[in-house]
Amino acid sequence: MKKEPIVVRVMLVGLGNVGTGFLRILARRHERLAARYGLVFRVTAAADSSGLAVDADGFDPAALVALKAAGRGIDTLPAFRPHVSAAEALGQAPCDLVVEAAPLNLENGEPGLSVVRAALANGIHAVLADKGPLVLAYGELSDAARRSGAALAFSATVCGPLPVINCGRRDFVAAEITRFRGVLNATTNFILASLEQGKPYREALREAQDAGAAEADPRLDVEGWDTAAKLVIVANSVLRTPASLQDVAVRGITDLGPGDLAQHRRRGKTVKLLAVAEKQGRTYRLSVAPAALPADDFLAACNGWEMGVTFDSDLYGPMYFKTWEREPGPTAAAVLRDAVNVCLPG
Amino acid sequence: MKKEPIVVRVMLVGLGNVGTGFLRILARRHERLAARYGLVFRVTAAADSSGLAVDADGFDPAALVALKAAGRGIDTLPAFRPHVSAAEALGQAPCDLVVEAAPLNLENGEPGLSVVRAALANGIHAVLADKGPLVLAYGELSDAARRSGAALAFSATVCGPLPVINCGRRDFVAAEITRFRGVLNATTNFILASLEQGKPYREALREAQDAGAAEADPRLDVEGWDTAAKLVIVANSVLRTPASLQDVAVRGITDLGPGDLAQHRRRGKTVKLLAVAEKQGRTYRLSVAPAALPADDFLAACNGWEMGVTFDSDLYGPMYFKTWEREPGPTAAAVLRDAVNVCLPG
Repeated sequence: MKKEPIVVRVMLVGLGNVGTGFLRILARRHERLAARYGLVFRVTAAADSSGLAVDADGFDPAALVALKAAGRGIDTLPAFRPHVSAAEALGQAPCDLVVEAAPLNLENGEPGLSVVRAALANGIHAVLADKGPLVLAYGELSDAARRSGAALAFSATVCGPLPVINCGRRDFVAAEITRFRGVLNATTNFILASLEQGKPYREALREAQDAGAAEADPRLDVEGWDTAAKLVIVANSVLRTPASLQDVAVRGITDLGPGDLAQHRRRGKTVKLLAVAEKQGRTYRLSVAPAALPADDFLAACNGWEMGVTFDSDLYGPMYFKTWEREPGPTAAAVLRDAVNVCLPG
Repeated sequence: MKKEPIVVRVMLVGLGNVGTGFLRILARRHERLAARYGLVFRVTAAADSSGLAVDADGFDPAALVALKAAGRGIDTLPAFRPHVSAAEALGQAPCDLVVEAAPLNLENGEPGLSVVRAALANGIHAVLADKGPLVLAYGELSDAARRSGAALAFSATVCGPLPVINCGRRDFVAAEITRFRGVLNATTNFILASLEQGKPYREALREAQDAGAAEADPRLDVEGWDTAAKLVIVANSVLRTPASLQDVAVRGITDLGPGDLAQHRRRGKTVKLLAVAEKQGRTYRLSVAPAALPADDFLAACNGWEMGVTFDSDLYGPMYFKTWEREPGPTAAAVLRDAVNVCLPG
């Protein structure tokens, strides 16, 4: 006997590249999700910067994608609810899962932080593509999740589809991770490759932005803060070390020119914006800075749109992971992965 | 308030490199396992090729390691139970988890298959380092686990510590994996590297055996059957495709000489024993054979004692994983990882 699929009522906050990518996959994979996982995702609330709309029967994901592609906002829908925040809406309509994919805000984590906080307090699972709330309030949010029994998942926040967080949390059982290193920002990595080929900085940045992979504010990428944010998430969730951005020594790539890279190239080295967590005593030294890596370093071969990490530990031997991502589809898939994994029965 | 740790009563079947490695970690990490995971593993039954011993209070893991290091067998212990098989013992003494690390037997899966079958039928979790039962009876065992609610975990069987199985099963949600490739056997990979350096085959094989990484019967490594066994496990558990060894086109490295490798080397290519699962229509074409890979192929840079895999999928973009393992400690850690993950409360 075939069991009836479980309906998961989703509030989607943020309809940018990742949010609409998530909707695209829901539209295309609806039947597979029901057949393989027994889950039907119904987007019953959706919010963008223009506001929030609620439909208990569920929005058509493809229609929401079309709305955004046409340059329109949620506030043009009949189901628009003026003067209702996402956090308030959680108390007014049933919801099983919040998917939070709002733009990165490292100042105060909003608008994501409030809705994630409200969800977890009420036992509603939260899946984040947005790093802000995790960087600013990881301890508070994970405590809230533990107390209410809700899941807090965020595998899309570090290297998109690459399961850095999942492997880090699940696959190094009983070990101490002695060193974590990562090329965590594909935009910067692409720009560095272009600089190495002799392209001017502005041209390299524009190409990265045209591909839609750069953060809305490119300073977050090139000044190293996006990388630092990911390192803070790894420190808190994988390395079990409470850390904030203030604990990371951050230097970006903005003072590098084609000349610097050519010089290292002649010595057989490649410059990467490297995140490092190095165990020192009972804690970790955290840093983000350009590093000239020898050719046989795994991360030196992390090219262009690739992102990669290495883990050293006292039980498992060295591990190396990398992926390639030019557009945010795979990151959106990582959001769906978390959504399925937290909602799976059993 | 600190919760009391949960006691997990373990039957350990197989006291070779991996089994004793598991005991070594239990001895060293006892306190961390209790503090971090709330779990105390108590080995209440242990079996090797000489027989089975049972102690309801739990054996001292370090004493069992010392016993094997002294070249003695379980049959020299006072707790030895002659004429009792591991499967029979499961019905006689309480047990929460079977760790099955018996030598690989691709003919009939014994002695592992019987005890894993008995465990799962009785709702007892099974963690396998032994590929045999999975290669020969994956469908039966996973059905039995589903019916009884017991867990069946085996992340140590493919690339030891590298979470190939875990990532494959958990991190490609809703996707089709279109191609899987792997360098899955470190022994063969080490031998190929030695041949490439001009060493004779016999010397290369002996070095690999001295390191303790080769299977007891080295033909399983060099004729490709160990690699094929791992590919069959990936096919069944990750690719959701029922497959057996008969479905894999297998060619080993025994007919390769230093001359062949040098010839490819001059063309900038490296020979690897490559496992491939390639999606074709609704199924996968499975093969194991030496392949000459170009230098920029991720798996060409999988050197010596390294093992690695690549995944291509229709949602997540390409993923590349590798690790390095010269002695079985990391594989033993992977057994512990599974044991903890299946026993974790909640």
